[in-house]
Amino acid sequence: MNLTELDIIKIIGNNLTYKGNVLKSIGDDCAVFKLEREYLVITTDMMFKSTHFPDILTPFQIGMRIITANLSDIAAMCAKPLGIVVSMGFNAPKKDFIMELTKGMDHMAREYKCPIVGGDTNNSKELTLCGTAFGITKNPIFRGGNIGEDIMITYDIGRVYCALEIIKMKDKGIINKRTFESLLEEYPNIIKKLTEPMARVNEGIVINEYINSCCDISDGLKKELFYIGNFEVYSKKLLNAIPKDVMEFCHRLNIDPIVAALNSGEEFELLFTTERSKEVIHKLKEECNGRAIKIGKVIEEGHYIDDIELKPGGYIHKW
Amino acid sequence: MNLTELDIIKIIGNNLTYKGNVLKSIGDDCAVFKLEREYLVITTDMMFKSTHFPDILTPFQIGMRIITANLSDIAAMCAKPLGIVVSMGFNAPKKDFIMELTKGMDHMAREYKCPIVGGDTNNSKELTLCGTAFGITKNPIFRGGNIGEDIMITYDIGRVYCALEIIKMKDKGIINKRTFESLLEEYPNIIKKLTEPMARVNEGIVINEYINSCCDISDGLKKELFYIGNFEVYSKKLLNAIPKDVMEFCHRLNIDPIVAALNSGEEFELLFTTERSKEVIHKLKEECNGRAIKIGKVIEEGHYIDDIELKPGGYIHKW
Repeated sequence: MNLTELDIIKIIGNNLTYKGNVLKSIGDDCAVFKLEREYLVITTDMMFKSTHFPDILTPFQIGMRIITANLSDIAAMCAKPLGIVVSMGFNAPKKDFIMELTKGMDHMAREYKCPIVGGDTNNSKELTLCGTAFGITKNPIFRGGNIGEDIMITYDIGRVYCALEIIKMKDKGIINKRTFESLLEEYPNIIKKLTEPMARVNEGIVINEYINSCCDISDGLKKELFYIGNFEVYSKKLLNAIPKDVMEFCHRLNIDPIVAALNSGEEFELLFTTERSKEVIHKLKEECNGRAIKIGKVIEEGHYIDDIELKPGGYIHKW
Repeated sequence: MNLTELDIIKIIGNNLTYKGNVLKSIGDDCAVFKLEREYLVITTDMMFKSTHFPDILTPFQIGMRIITANLSDIAAMCAKPLGIVVSMGFNAPKKDFIMELTKGMDHMAREYKCPIVGGDTNNSKELTLCGTAFGITKNPIFRGGNIGEDIMITYDIGRVYCALEIIKMKDKGIINKRTFESLLEEYPNIIKKLTEPMARVNEGIVINEYINSCCDISDGLKKELFYIGNFEVYSKKLLNAIPKDVMEFCHRLNIDPIVAALNSGEEFELLFTTERSKEVIHKLKEECNGRAIKIGKVIEEGHYIDDIELKPGGYIHKW
């Protein structure tokens, strides 16, 4: 019988007993070390062609993604990126592929002001990318949240869920190639959030001093909410964070937009808690033309959307 | 036509144009950043089962190796390890395999006082390990060397070359399984240097303030000597760094031991230059029961072993 990923993680966790002087390791977006005058935060992400890259990604977008996925964890600590190393395994690659891949990486490195400073290249059975990003901050922001704080997210949510629905319909033969392509044209921003997501690096730096906890939305909003602790999310407020194209798409396909928002993963938006939501909104707007929306509150006990209790784990069904 | 590794590295180098604030990136053992009060050094190594792990390695030894290979680059900067992240890709692994692999990793993490603080696990087509180690120092030691300085190496050299010769003879059918196994028994320290090499982490920290340049011997002594600059190596001195079992093995197989020493890669010994060789020898002995041997000098012009000029690149033939 094959081991599940959870089995494997458990075995690994049990065997890695030496803890050294790390301040925070497994369980947050980054490992954190206290240096003399600052904190070092570090994260790693390994990706394989067959499991991590939807077919619609171009080589340039694959390069963008390995950088963004790593930088999103640096953003989640509200730290300033210092650099990233990227190791690459190739299976008889074409020159054009490597050109586009590395141009995509360089493009995002410049965007996040995070130089690619090393790596390793190898032959491998399929395209394999492993990035390790690191950053510096005087004040690392951990997961969690305190009772009474507002729960906020940056920008918007739901598009990645919709993009994956479009791909799923094509893969299952529910729509033909022509409908698929016209949907891609009709909803360019939905597709773009899947193919060219942005890590909220500047936003994390700007809000650092105003917030008390932070993580990125990589596993879907619902799962990340449970890391905060006890919460109450207001569906009316959450609807403010759902963009118009998602609302329209959901209406057309008879999807509950709240379901889309709660289950949308790899959004790379920041989910954070604060007592100073007004300042956060003001600062984000002033300093990076950014946006954040209050969607709920940290409460004493329980996990709610309006009056409905949420259970951890699993997909959230329509209600 | 397939691209060579050099082609690929060239394409990547041309496309990664954003340099940011890194002090040193590609071209040394680690990338180096200046922080407020110290320097951060960082390195990464990716390994695939089919290309990086000789069959004689046990899963425990594979775990040891991914840690040691990374830590050797930290040692080469004479820095103190802070931590390492290790991402792992598995192809339908057995529980025992993961147990042994991670125990080997933990064993070396403890040895080097370098906690494993994160990682990522995935399905992959073959065992894939990617480690990224990072360390701190007030005084990073780069590659290079100044005219007149002594060239030294830690401990000894040549065993890995001999171990690989034994394996090569078996793979080519020159020796049968029984002879192979009796050679393994006869030369346990030769085999151990291949299967359980040590990164010279403590040694690097101890000699930091006494030396001017340093690298680790991963590509073979000869190749690393050329990174120093111009040099003269004395074969008589180099023989002092070749252990007795290597001398005996070489004699038996009609191998020139100097050839073995110059071409032995993945030794993970440190190669460094200093004006204070006596202090280095004394300190190493006092503080970590360690050893270093002077093998030559940095000179004004040329690359010599005794009177014979060495050319860069390629295998070094008997003279």
